[in-house]
Parts: sequence; C-alpha cells; structure tokens
Amino acid sequence: MAKIAIMGFGTVGSGVLEVCRRNAASIARRVGEPVEVKYILDVRDFSGSPDADLFVKDLDIILNDPEVRVVVETIGGTKFAYPYVRRCLESGRSVCTSNKEMVATYGAELLALAREHGAAFLFEASVGGGTPIITPMHQCLAANHISRIEGIVNGTTNFMLTKMKRENMGFDAALKIAQQLGYAETKVPGDDVVGRDACRKIAILASLASGKAVYPENIPTRGIRQITVADIKAAEKLESAIKLIAWYRELPDGGVSAGVEPMLVPDNNQLANVDDVFNAVLMKGDMLGDVIFYGKGAGKLPTASAVVADIIDALKDGAAIHDSLFWQPAPKREGMLPDDTAYAWYIRAKGIPAAVLASVAGEGSPVDEGPEGVSYLMKDATPAVVEAVSEKIALLGGRVDLVLKQMDE
Amino acid sequence: MAKIAIMGFGTVGSGVLEVCRRNAASIARRVGEPVEVKYILDVRDFSGSPDADLFVKDLDIILNDPEVRVVVETIGGTKFAYPYVRRCLESGRSVCTSNKEMVATYGAELLALAREHGAAFLFEASVGGGTPIITPMHQCLAANHISRIEGIVNGTTNFMLTKMKRENMGFDAALKIAQQLGYAETKVPGDDVVGRDACRKIAILASLASGKAVYPENIPTRGIRQITVADIKAAEKLESAIKLIAWYRELPDGGVSAGVEPMLVPDNNQLANVDDVFNAVLMKGDMLGDVIFYGKGAGKLPTASAVVADIIDALKDGAAIHDSLFWQPAPKREGMLPDDTAYAWYIRAKGIPAAVLASVAGEGSPVDEGPEGVSYLMKDATPAVVEAVSEKIALLGGRVDLVLKQMDE
Repeated sequence: MAKIAIMGFGTVGSGVLEVCRRNAASIARRVGEPVEVKYILDVRDFSGSPDADLFVKDLDIILNDPEVRVVVETIGGTKFAYPYVRRCLESGRSVCTSNKEMVATYGAELLALAREHGAAFLFEASVGGGTPIITPMHQCLAANHISRIEGIVNGTTNFMLTKMKRENMGFDAALKIAQQLGYAETKVPGDDVVGRDACRKIAILASLASGKAVYPENIPTRGIRQITVADIKAAEKLESAIKLIAWYRELPDGGVSAGVEPMLVPDNNQLANVDDVFNAVLMKGDMLGDVIFYGKGAGKLPTASAVVADIIDALKDGAAIHDSLFWQPAPKREGMLPDDTAYAWYIRAKGIPAAVLASVAGEGSPVDEGPEGVSYLMKDATPAVVEAVSEKIALLGGRVDLVLKQMDE
Repeated sequence: MAKIAIMGFGTVGSGVLEVCRRNAASIARRVGEPVEVKYILDVRDFSGSPDADLFVKDLDIILNDPEVRVVVETIGGTKFAYPYVRRCLESGRSVCTSNKEMVATYGAELLALAREHGAAFLFEASVGGGTPIITPMHQCLAANHISRIEGIVNGTTNFMLTKMKRENMGFDAALKIAQQLGYAETKVPGDDVVGRDACRKIAILASLASGKAVYPENIPTRGIRQITVADIKAAEKLESAIKLIAWYRELPDGGVSAGVEPMLVPDNNQLANVDDVFNAVLMKGDMLGDVIFYGKGAGKLPTASAVVADIIDALKDGAAIHDSLFWQPAPKREGMLPDDTAYAWYIRAKGIPAAVLASVAGEGSPVDEGPEGVSYLMKDATPAVVEAVSEKIALLGGRVDLVLKQMDE
C-alpha cells in the first residue's frame, strides 16, 4: 500500500481524493500497489466530513510518518505552499502540485531541491489543467528543440471572448457569467482577466523550453479588458478571432522573448477555433514541426486527474525519470523581455478620421468605423514602429485605444 | 557512451540517425551520457555511404555486442521485423519501433516478451508519426479511464480529402498528387486509401485503451475510394467535412467496438478543421473529458524524433516505467466487432427519385440531387436499420452507393 498526503483540501485537493478513490483499481495496477490518502492537511474544520479522521493541522505529523512517500500540494499561492513544499522535498518526499504561481516563481529552486534529495517535483496540472502539456513536452518531444510556443492557457478569458463573439455580449456581462459559473483559475479575482494567470503558465513553459528560469515579472502582460464587441466584429471581417495568447519565442541571438496579450488569430490558424473554457498549446519542434495539445484547461476532476497521473509517476519512478523536467536558476532581469519581431497589427483609434489613421499607419487596409473609433490593419511593423505611430496620432489630437498583433495563419 | 543499433535504413531509420546527430547535445543531457549509433543492419549495399563502416548484414553481430542496449526497428512489415525484434527482446535489449503493422499484430506478445526479459518495447512513432499520442495516453491520462477514441490517423487520405474539398479535385487526381509528393504511410500501395493503415493504428490505440488485444482483422474498415467531390460539396451544405475516422468505443456491456470509415464531421467538431497531412486524435477520459493531440502524422524527421524520444526513455529507465504500456493477449474473434449505436446518416442513392429515398429512409432531410444520384440526411438509426433501408431501395430498383455516419458536434 503506497501512502500519500494532500495539503490543501479545496477544489483540486478534494478532486485528488475523489480521483484516487474512483479509479483506485486502475491506479493500483499502474503503481503496482494500491494508493491510499493517509493525511489531509488543512487549517479549516472538517470534523463533520466522512473523512474527518484523515485531517491534520500540523505538517510535522506528515513529515514524521515514514510511510508517506508523496505529498500533493493544492493549497495555492506561495505564502504557505512554498515553505511547506520545501520541507517536504527536504525530507525526501516527492511533491506533485497544480500551483502555477509557486512553480513560476520558485520552480528552478524547487526542482534543484528535489534533485538534491532524490525526490521528484512534478507539476503537470499547473499548465492546461488536465490536458497533458508538460509531460509530452519534456518527454515525447525530448528529441526536439522547441523554439516557439503559442497557447490559449486561460479558460476563463477564452470563455468570455467566446461569449462576446457568439452572443455580442459586452465584457462586463461576459465576466459576470464567468464568475457565476465559477470559472476562475486564480485566487485573486481579476488575475485571469489581466493575464496574470496566463503569464505564470507561459513562464513555466518558457523556463522548460529554454532550460533557464523565465520569470513572470519579466513577461510583458496585457489582459482582455480593452477588447470590445466592436473589435471582435472587426476581427470577424478580417476572418479572424481575438484570443488571449501566451507566447514564447527563441530569438536568433539565443535570447528568449515571451508575452501575454490579446492577438488577432486568423480563422485557419488552429488556435482560432479553440472556444469556451478549452485550452490549446502549440509547440514548434525542430524535427517535428507543429504539435498541438488541446483539452479542458481547468475544472476539479480534469485538474485532479493530472495531479494523480503525477502521483503515479512519482510512486513508480521517484526522481529517476524526470531529468529532463528541469531548468537552471537565472537572475531576474531588469525590465521586460524584448520583442523586436515584425507583425501585422490591428489598430483602433479615436479622434481622427480614417484617412488620417491610414496615412500615419502606412501600408495596410482600413477595417471598420464606428462609435468606438476607426480601425486599421497595418502591414508588418515592429512594436517600436507601432509605438511611434501611436505617438504621431496623439500629436494629431487622436488616441490609439487598442493595438493587437496578428498571428501567422 | 550509450550504444544503440538501427535495423532497416529506409526513410525513418535514416531519420533516426540524423536526429541522433543533429540534437546530440540535448539528447546526451537527457540520457545522462552521449548516444552513439554503433550498427545499422540493412541487406542493401551502403558501401558508398559516409557511414559505410556502421553497416552490418547479420543480426548476430548486434546481439553478440554487449555494448548495444537499445535496438531500433524500422524495417517495416512483419516478415523480418517480427523475428528480429523477438530475438532482440529475448537478448534483453529494449526495442523502439515505428512499425504499426507489427505492433498491431504482435503487440501483446512482444510486450509480454519484453517484460519477461526486463526490456522495454516502445512504439510511440507507430501512431501519429511524431505527434505524441501513445505516451500521453498511458502516462498523462493514467488516472483516467478512456472510453472513446476518435482520430484522423492517416495523413495521406486526409491530404487527399483536403485537396478534393479545396480544389474540387477528383479522387484519382488527388491520389496521383499524394503519390508524387511521396505521401504513403504503408509499404503496399493502396493500404492508405483502403483504410488499412488507419485500421492498424486504431487497433493499437484500442488495445491500449481496453487493456486487451484488439486485432485489425476484427475492425470493420472502409476507405475513401467511394467519396466523390459531389459528396464533399453535399457535406459542405450540411456545414460538415468528410474525414476518414478511426474510432474506438467501449460498449455499455463492457465489450468494445471499433471501426475505420469516412464520416460526416460537423464543422464545429475540432476534427473537421484538421487538414492536409495533419493527424489528430481525440480521447475521452472519465475524469478529464475530451483531449486532442494534433500534429504531423508522418514524415521522416517527425517520425524519427518520436523514435528517438523512445530511445531516450529506454536508455534512461529500461523497462521500469512502462508498466502501463501493456495489453493482455486475447483470442482473435470470429468476424467483425459489433456496432449497434444509432447515428444520423448521409445516404447517396441512384436510380430512385429523391421523394422515394425520403419515404424509405424515414425521418430526415434531403441534401442534394445531381448526376451521381440523390442524397439524404437520415435521422438517428442503427447500422442494421440503414442496411434494411439499402435493401428496400434495391427492391425498388435503386442502389445505395454511399452511407456515412455523422459524428457528434
């Protein structure tokens, strides 16, 4: 009998218990012995629960029990999760977590700590919920060099953009429905909408792809608050959808770039058709070309099932198999990661006529005119050029309210 | 230095050598030591090759060299590949293969043989080329019970159907172009078009999902030869595409069903937008819901990179980690797997008026009329009912030339 403990009995933590019980037989077959949840650590009172006898409030009870081989961390945040996970790894326990904030912030350190103590530190559920992304990336694509990642990694905002598109619903109404349905992938309200959740996830994928820590603080991040129904309709005219894209790119000089921002995605790009709460991540391997992983990005049982797959891995193999799931620590850089790539751009401006916008923005084509201003599709330009265009428009008495990069087809 | 051997220096075999060399540094980092191809077994003459000194014609040279830890099988077919792989596994060598015919036919036996001799038998490249499907399925979805699989797993036919749709090109012209471009995933010409390649692949996935051997011979298989441009246009009227779908389904009584056939795929089903040589496989997990793996299904370097990922796994972990990559042998059944599920159906018939077709086919709606006959979309019916409808039409002097099941949205 393999014994494990769960820290944090919220949505995902209780899901882990449920998955372990519902699929107990097949999990036992895979591990080679039955798996039992021996302790649940939570500060709240669960004395009325049918599992009341599993609950403890003191981490030492878990750490002092030599039977416990794997600890699940589903507390969230970093205040308690981070020191607790450190102590588990230092005691030689493998840790499986869905906590993207902790992994994005302390991943390099915790991976090194795990390695030092012969334990595994696994976090498949931190990106894409239940959708396999991290394991295929470091294991199946092991013979590939990954130079580019583009993904829809936040289900809440993707649900909202889908509602806005299909039902002409405004941002606020879409947000309200998302909240009513309980879609929130972050503890702090608004972290989804401003892109912070997506930022943590791409930080994890960028760190894995580049082999060096890429920190959320250095990733330029914009959410979807500026997007209006008129923008989404304008995008439709361009046979495109607006999606919140988290991206990573290796630069020709060996450096890296990354960002989170709403982008114009042409309909024949596979990501344009990823709707509702679904996530999809595209990776470009040097041998393989493009590969996409698609599935539900959040939800109790999907996310929990990814944590349980990690538990199975950790119980079977310990730290041995996860050499490729690793990145080096790196100093935090000053300021943001650079992006000098040229893109086509969607620009929406107010206070100037369409003809003036066209003459300032240069080569391109007008898209739409309405109460929210005039919009224009600008041909290939670097972000610096677009910045200069915005300044010129300001000098002419106008104001650029939105710029969106266009993705490749 | 980890030594390996390659059996069969065709497209994929030579790709394995190329991938091992081009990404040598990152492969060495993952394995923990450099990986060297020490032998290449091939009956043909490669004396002019820069790697001439690696070639051998006698398997015993490889088996007698204790340095060789992993053998790659890329011969194809079963005549030589099967006895050679048996001998490698019996000698304790792990085997990595892209050979779907051998895996579909002898998988259970070879997996058991590998287990018996402490070796690994890995075949990620046998389905989906370079796209990770098998490893995510048995590892990342380990906490899920997989009850349903639907996939586009043959790039050649998907390329042809895309050509037919986009360029109104007939079947024969599309086949010719596919051949000119060197798209063929099977040794025997035509095995792609009649669905035999897809049948082997779904046999492998069905065996893995059910845990018991499902043989290609028992899977009802229809190719795309009957599909005309008129059918594809009729499908467009129904906001659908015609795709060659390989499917697996667990039945309510615990039995299994599987098939390969062209199907009507509604545009808002993710599989409808998988075009050209791309493959995509959808799996339904009981905890996770739907997940899709998408990527290039064939090609030298993509397929080779999947074989190399298996080599890395085999060198790192040997047989230990692959307990879940296993299915039990099962006796071959008499006849075909059953399918009593009700579907909506596209029917094309000749020699009867549209009104007669409608009255015989029952509830539904007319789709099209043209020189190739009349077509009708029939509401939910089992295959047996559709069979009876075809017989009635024959009695009335008509002939049903094509029936296609409609997939769910």
